This record gives sequence, structure tokens and C-alpha cells, in this order.
Amino acid sequence: MSQQVVIIGGVALGPKAACRFKRLEPESNVIMLDRSPRISYGGCGIPYYVSGEVSEITGLQSTAFHMVRNPEFFRDVKDVDARNETEVTAIDRAAKTVTAKHLPTGREETIPYDKLVLAMGSRPRRLPIAGLDLPGVHTVDSLEAAESIKAAVAAGSVGSVAIIGSGFIGLEMAVAFADMWGLEVTVIELFDQILPGVTGPTLSTMARKHMEEKGVAFRLSEQVARIEGNGKVERVVTDKGVVEADMVIVSVGVVPNAELAKAAGLAVSERGGVLVNEHMRTSDPDIYAGGDCVEVKNLVTGQPMYLPLGSMANRQGRVIGDNLAGGDARFTGVVGSWCVKLFDLGVAGTGLTLAGATRAGFDAVATHITAIDRAHFYPEHGLMSLELVAERGTRRVLGLQGVSVMGDALIGKINTVAAMLPQKPTVSDISNVEVAYSPPFAAAMDILNTVGNAADNILTGQNKGISVTEFAKLWDDADSNVQVIDCRENLQGAPLEAKHPGRWHNIPQGQLRHRLQEVPKDKPVFLMCNTGARSYEALVTLTDAGFTQVVSVEGGMAAVNAAGVDV
Amino acid sequence: MSQQVVIIGGVALGPKAACRFKRLEPESNVIMLDRSPRISYGGCGIPYYVSGEVSEITGLQSTAFHMVRNPEFFRDVKDVDARNETEVTAIDRAAKTVTAKHLPTGREETIPYDKLVLAMGSRPRRLPIAGLDLPGVHTVDSLEAAESIKAAVAAGSVGSVAIIGSGFIGLEMAVAFADMWGLEVTVIELFDQILPGVTGPTLSTMARKHMEEKGVAFRLSEQVARIEGNGKVERVVTDKGVVEADMVIVSVGVVPNAELAKAAGLAVSERGGVLVNEHMRTSDPDIYAGGDCVEVKNLVTGQPMYLPLGSMANRQGRVIGDNLAGGDARFTGVVGSWCVKLFDLGVAGTGLTLAGATRAGFDAVATHITAIDRAHFYPEHGLMSLELVAERGTRRVLGLQGVSVMGDALIGKINTVAAMLPQKPTVSDISNVEVAYSPPFAAAMDILNTVGNAADNILTGQNKGISVTEFAKLWDDADSNVQVIDCRENLQGAPLEAKHPGRWHNIPQGQLRHRLQEVPKDKPVFLMCNTGARSYEALVTLTDAGFTQVVSVEGGMAAVNAAGVDV
Repeated sequence: MSQQVVIIGGVALGPKAACRFKRLEPESNVIMLDRSPRISYGGCGIPYYVSGEVSEITGLQSTAFHMVRNPEFFRDVKDVDARNETEVTAIDRAAKTVTAKHLPTGREETIPYDKLVLAMGSRPRRLPIAGLDLPGVHTVDSLEAAESIKAAVAAGSVGSVAIIGSGFIGLEMAVAFADMWGLEVTVIELFDQILPGVTGPTLSTMARKHMEEKGVAFRLSEQVARIEGNGKVERVVTDKGVVEADMVIVSVGVVPNAELAKAAGLAVSERGGVLVNEHMRTSDPDIYAGGDCVEVKNLVTGQPMYLPLGSMANRQGRVIGDNLAGGDARFTGVVGSWCVKLFDLGVAGTGLTLAGATRAGFDAVATHITAIDRAHFYPEHGLMSLELVAERGTRRVLGLQGVSVMGDALIGKINTVAAMLPQKPTVSDISNVEVAYSPPFAAAMDILNTVGNAADNILTGQNKGISVTEFAKLWDDADSNVQVIDCRENLQGAPLEAKHPGRWHNIPQGQLRHRLQEVPKDKPVFLMCNTGARSYEALVTLTDAGFTQVVSVEGGMAAVNAAGVDV
Repeated sequence: MSQQVVIIGGVALGPKAACRFKRLEPESNVIMLDRSPRISYGGCGIPYYVSGEVSEITGLQSTAFHMVRNPEFFRDVKDVDARNETEVTAIDRAAKTVTAKHLPTGREETIPYDKLVLAMGSRPRRLPIAGLDLPGVHTVDSLEAAESIKAAVAAGSVGSVAIIGSGFIGLEMAVAFADMWGLEVTVIELFDQILPGVTGPTLSTMARKHMEEKGVAFRLSEQVARIEGNGKVERVVTDKGVVEADMVIVSVGVVPNAELAKAAGLAVSERGGVLVNEHMRTSDPDIYAGGDCVEVKNLVTGQPMYLPLGSMANRQGRVIGDNLAGGDARFTGVVGSWCVKLFDLGVAGTGLTLAGATRAGFDAVATHITAIDRAHFYPEHGLMSLELVAERGTRRVLGLQGVSVMGDALIGKINTVAAMLPQKPTVSDISNVEVAYSPPFAAAMDILNTVGNAADNILTGQNKGISVTEFAKLWDDADSNVQVIDCRENLQGAPLEAKHPGRWHNIPQGQLRHRLQEVPKDKPVFLMCNTGARSYEALVTLTDAGFTQVVSVEGGMAAVNAAGVDV
């Protein structure tokens, strides 16, 4: 059987589906259409092109062995008829044709299909404000945009950049401008934290603090009113002030390009994503869709989710390629894994945050740990902070987020839990998950097992914890009368006891059992140590001695310092 | 309820069980007995102490915040009665007592228990050869042994070291001697590969080649006959020759210390490990056991397995601590994850190798890939080689092994699959596993998904592969008449076509469709490219054109070079 497959969209999902299908059915014909001049590029690499880490734009469009993935490449190497600068303007499902317009010439063509693949991707969400079209205002959505941003920066005409939105792309661009070009960068965020939606307040604060130390400025809880300038951008005006800037990057998320599908009568979600089943098939059995233009099922909540990521697109592309060739491949859904590198810090997560879990109706709790990420005696190690979100009662694990200077190690932990999430693991499964052990790579009780144990202690009531961000609020509130027992054994650094007489008390945990009379019984007492391990043991001792208002500060001074809490 | 718990053994499992139990039942009494002078140390860190990366031996016995875990520490900080240099000589299960002998004084004491924990660990397997007791012959089983090895090396009296056994400890010691001290190191191995049992021939060859490049010599398939020397060790004599050496390390595995348990009438396996159920309880309901002295269930084969690792001991220790306090914690078994750092190379695995799977009765196949471990355009990346072992028919994944200079990234992939193995995943589950994606950390089609896809192609017959080690055997055999089609597009490096006229043919894959007449139809043809991706596409093209004797070389020239295959 030979068939003609038409694919609308030539980036990520389109090429993957095309090539997989052609390998399974070499005798069939594949036509891949894209309205852009360039196809099959790694759009996620744009920040690294802007920074200069990728020197040539063709680096984002090349194979690992330096072949540019242009239409000639697809013809010669893949036997795929790829046509750039060709926009599909309509789908006729009854006739099984698409209308394609060659943009340079305006010539229109009707192309028949046996099977159609929708890989139209997404476009930047457009804010309802004035000034978006001023020269110097950019979105990060194409190689052409990337080239114009980098050209302006390289020409030396940009001293300051304002970035609207602190999602992945906004922050990656902030790093690119500040780290490699030394520009003055200000990130403006509507929410009261960066990476909203994917991190909780403590990890988010740690990531922000790291970026601030590298010179990036943040303005949180600020709403952009308009962008102003005389002939070119000069400033961003918010509800709270003004950010002067020679360049503005607007990165406030993307929306699916599903208009063509909707116009053709295909089922589209309320949010605008094309609806597909596990085979990545739309409501029309001859039409598949995937990548940034579809919604997928969140396997943790069971609800639809929009997760526009190049990795999803690639995996879905292979599923579609299989099914075009008569296969039975399935894409059952996602748990929502992500990662981002912010200067030296890896930040990553999977599943739900505490806020996300609460919003989805779970009675959830988050447990935070900060600890050394491998055998502490091995010289090359780093701190890692992890937050495990679990449901009370069922003990079901709902998500894990983390930050660490050991980025690869962090992503490994996240991926491990992501692989378990579809099976609805409990915190005991995290306590017992079999992490490969050797001192250069892990601790004997790996930090992943440890966060499982910590969550177990919280869920059983064996430990009572508070995050450093919650602790900071109470500490800063003079009325709260917060007392701290510092249980560190080998105290180093600033003498906090002297700095805060009557509020901060040093009692090493090894002496606590014999100094119980020094612990206030009638006030809330917060137990502090290096990372939260010793303070948990102190809590056990005090609880056993009848103290009821004791709480352990999760992550201890390591977390206090990483989050920049002022004590 | 207050009870008395006696723990025999003060390293890893013993302290973990003791401390966990004490946190759950602070009012109960715990006595932990160990015959060694020092307790609660990280024995896995000994190679890093010998190398000098850990400067003081107390570094292996300290907490992350520099407290030495000696009996005083256990008393003050943990409220545990830890007694070193105290050997248990008998268990009286009827009376519920142990007989403990204080070694310095010879004083004996009978200690009653409500619950007993066996944490006796393991000891080095002793080879049945002469010369083991010569000065300069060491095993790596205690801090005292570590100190005497390091003292001899630091004194400058050691120029050459022979290491018997190429398991984890033998190789880690080889690295310590060669890398940090510049000694002449020869590893002698009975099997025809290093890391026997845990790696297949290709990955093992890659690891060995890396170590050879760093100066370590290997003698494979050699049986040690005896160790010789006049008053001190001078040489190792094997069935094939002699290795002169000033020091000999014997590291040929460990055996469980289960004699005490056996003498007390507890169930012990044929191999000698104490038998326990999921609660880590022995055949006596008041006696628990864990760590290096027990056998556990392999969750892939369903059979008992001996896996003496400090990480297992720690996880099992927590389970025992919970159950001592009346809990219902379970340790259901292991999948057999491990990792080791050999100079710059991480080597790791989980589950079964191809040979192990075959031995366990599976009709299995291994698929090898070698590729860049993340977005190839991101400047910091490295090669990773992965081997996925799967069962034909069921497509069940049985194991994954790998090597990479990006060690943390490799261990992350291994842990991800390890977390899935108990659920009996198929190769499709590996193709679809949700790896967090961002160019600094992963490829859009992550290498883990790729090895799943590659295995899928092999299992469906869509691709036919051969490992580079199998290819090397055929290539070296003049009678095999091996023909190579080199499908690389941008050929760089040595002109292999000119070096091997009539055997090596350059046909870039993009031209192959039009140069079919150059491909021999009557002989086996091996397709070679950079990493195995292009050669797979060439195989599809040739198969479609009616060629039947074509095979793709898995991992391509990247694997050829990493394994040191001479072409």
C-alpha cells in the first residue's frame, strides 16, 4: 500500500512524524509544508544562539554532524518533499485536500492527502497593551526573531533589556543577556514569584536569589501597563513604575495554532488546543495532530493539560509516524516534567506543585529538604534542594521540584520520579527507590530516598516542618514572638545568638536532652540546624519531653542561605 | 511500651536501624555492638581516602558537618549505647540473649534483648592460593586496611601494584593508585572482560580502553596461581605469566558474615546469606537482619540475589527501624542498580545484562547506541553509550547499562529505568518515558527515549544491528569477507576507503538511493556511520531495494572509537 501523507508544519513534530513514517513505508509519499523560510530547527536553542554559546544560527538547524536540515536535506537524505515558505490556508476534509499558498509567488495549489498531520505549533501570547509593535520589542518565536535580537545586541546598541514574563524562555533570555553580553537586565513578573505555576515559593526564591547574585533585577507582582518609546522602545510602564530599556522581550507564554483545525471542524478544546486521543488522532480518523498545537492528558490530575515542549513533539511525532503506517502506538499523556538552567543553577520539576495540587483538589503537603547531593566526603559535591508534594491520607506522590548547582544530578532525580508518577507511587516508594550508589555519584542514603523519608515523617506526624519562606514571614513579624533553638553542633559563622538576644538560642542537639529547661514551653519554638536533619532529631527529643509547640525549619541554614532569608 | 533492642554490627545498617528506631521510640533502649575499633564509617569511600581525595580517615567516619560518629557521638546525639571492640560470640534465641566479648579485656557479658538485629556485614572472599598472608598483600575491608595501604604508598615504598579482580573495588583502587599516586597498576581478571557479570562485552571494552589510556594495564582471562615474595610480596604468578608488584590488592568479591545466624539455627541460603522476608525479618520473628549479611529478591528474575551495597543497607536499616517500633515497612527487593567512576568515565547499570538475562532463561536481545547525551548544539555535551536488554516477544525491558563521561547524566538515565523495572516496562515505555527537556540537560529526543526506539526497531525487525565488538571479530577474520558501506555524509578523518580497497566503500546516505548498484548483493554488508542513525536509514533504503544481507553497526564510528576497534 502506498499513500500520500501531508504534514502541516516543519518544526519538531512534523519532521519527526515524516521521517519515522518514511522509514516504515519508504514507498509512500510525504509532503511537509511550512510557511517559514527555515524548517526543522531547534527553537529551544534560541537563548544559546543569542548568548553566543551557539555561534551560527545554522547550528540550530543542523544535525549533530553538521548537515543543515533544509528542503534539500529532506529530499536527499529523508526522501521527504519539504516545502518552506508555503502556507496552508484551508483543509477540505470532504475532498481530503489542503490548499497551500507559496508565499513568495502567491501561487496556490490544492494538495490531496490520504492522511493529514497537523503540526502547526504555537505562537507567543500577545499582551493587551500598547507599544508591542515598537522597534526593539521582540518575542522569541523564530530564527528570524533570534537573528534580529542578536544583531542588535552585537551591534552594541543595547545597554538594558526588560523582559516581561519569568517563565522558562524569559529567564533563559535574561541569562543570555546578562551572562554573555553583560547587559542590564530586568525581569518583570505579574505573579509574586518567578517560574509561577511550576515551582513553589521557596525553590522559586532560591532561583531568583541566584539570578540576582548574577546581576539580574526582578520586579515581582507588577503588571505591565504599556511599552513606550519615540520611534523605538524606551521603557516599560507598569502599575508600579517604569523600567527604562533599549530592548524588550515579551515572553508570557504561547497559545496553540489551532485556527486551521477549528475552521475545518475538528474538535478543539476551550483553551484552543486540538483534541486528540491516545493515538494522537483528531476527531477525524484521517487526521493526526501533535506538538504545540494539541492538548494532552495530565496523568497526575487526569485532566487536559497544555504542555508545549520540543521533547513532547518529538515523542508524539514518532507515535504519529507509527500510526500513519498502520501501527498501534500510543501517547498516553504527560506528568509535566521540565527543567531550565539559570546561570550555574539547574531548576527542574515534574508533576504538581503544592499550589497546583491544591488547585486540582488534592489535600496535599510539600516537604522541603536541602542537603549535599552525594557522599559528603567526596570532594566534588553540591547542595540540592528538593520539594516532594504528596497527598495526605493516601500518601500518594503528586510531584517533585528542585534546584541544584549539580544540574545533571537534579534532572536525574526528577526523571526518576517522573517515570514513577503514572503508577501513582506513595512516599514509601520514593523512600525505597533504588538509586545507583557510589560516593562520586550519590549518598548511601540518596537525597531522593531522603526526601521520601522526610515526607513520610511529615505525613505520619513524626516531624513537624516549616519552609524557610514561611519561617521568614514569622521571623520578620515582630508580633509573632518567634523563638529559635539553633541545634547545630559545630557552630560556624555569625553569632546569631548575640545578634538576636532572647530570640535565638544555641543548644547543640547533643546537649539538648540535658538542657530542656532552657527551651520555652509557652511559645512557638523553631528548631534550626545545618540542613534540617539535626533539628528533626531535636524535635523528636522535645516532643518526647512533652513540648508541643516545636517545629523544625526544613532545609535549615542551608535553605535559609540559599533563599536569602535575612536572619 | 519500652523495649531493649540489640544490634550486632555498627556500620551502615546497624546505625541506621538504631537511629531510626530511637526516633520512633525514644524511651526504648538500643545497644549496638561491633568488634572493630571504629564504627559507622563509609567503607565505600576507602578508595578516595587511599587516593588522597579524602585527606583524613576520619572524613569517612564523620557527618557532613564534621562530627566523628564514635561511641560518644551515638551516646550524646543519638542516645544509643554503641560499644566498639565488642564481639558477639553467640546468640541464645530461647533465652533471648547474646554473649558479647569485650576484645581488649576479654570480659564476657550476657545481654538480653527483646528484638535483635543482625548487621554483621560481609568479608572479602579468600582465594584458595598461597601467599595471601605475605606483607604487602591487602584486602579493602576496613579503615585499618585502608590506613596501612595509604601509609605504604605515601612512604614511597610502592612502585607497582597488582590488583586481583576487576569488580567495583578493584577498579576504584586501580584508579586511586594510578591517578593520584602515578603507580604502575596491573589488574588481573579471570574472565575475558572487566566488570564481569554487570556489563556486556562492548561497554566493558569501552571502560577498559578508557582506563588503559590513563595508564592502567589489564591481564584478562588469567587465573592467579599464587602470590610470591621473600619476606614481603614481590610478584603474582598466574597461569599465563608473572606480574611483578610491590603491593597486591585482592578484591574478588565478598561473602556474607552469617555464621552466627547459622549457629543460632536461623534460615540461611545456600550461598550463605541470612534469609529474610519483606519486613527484613529472619525465620525468628524477634530477629531482623539486613545489609551485606542477607540475600534479597531480584525483582527482575524473581530469584534471590546477593547485592552487598551501602545504599541497600541504609534503606533496609530504615525499614528495620520502622518494624522494630511496630511498623509495617517493607523492602520488596532489588533490581540491581550500581555505578562506578573510572577516571573521567561513569559506568552504571540496572537489571540484567544480556548474558545475565540469557542465564536467567530469557530469550533476550541487547541494543547498543552511542550518541551525544544532550542537545548537540549546546557546547557542554558528551558521548553516552547505552545498552538496553529486552525480552523478545513480550518486549519486556530487563536491564540497561551504560558508560559516559557525563557521569551524573548517565546515572540519571539508569535510575529512571531502575524505578520502572519493578513494573515490568516494555520498550515502548522507554520510548515514551518523560524526560525533562532543556538543551543544557537533554536532547529533544532524549538518548533514553532513543535507546527505547532503537530496541523497538530491532525487536520489530525494522533494523538489524550488530555490536561493534561482534563487528570487530568479523572484520578481523579475513575469511568472513566483510564489506563495509560507510554512509557518513561529511567524512572526516582517516580515509578508510583507501586503506581497505574492496572492503570499505564510501557512499553518503543521501546518495545511496541513486548508487544502489555499488552495493554488493551477494555478501554480508555492514553499514557504518557516525553513531548508527544514518546507517539505520541506509539499511531501510537497502532493505526496501531488496538487499537482504545488510546489517547496521550499532553506535557507528563513535562506538568503534570508544571501544578501540582497529579499522
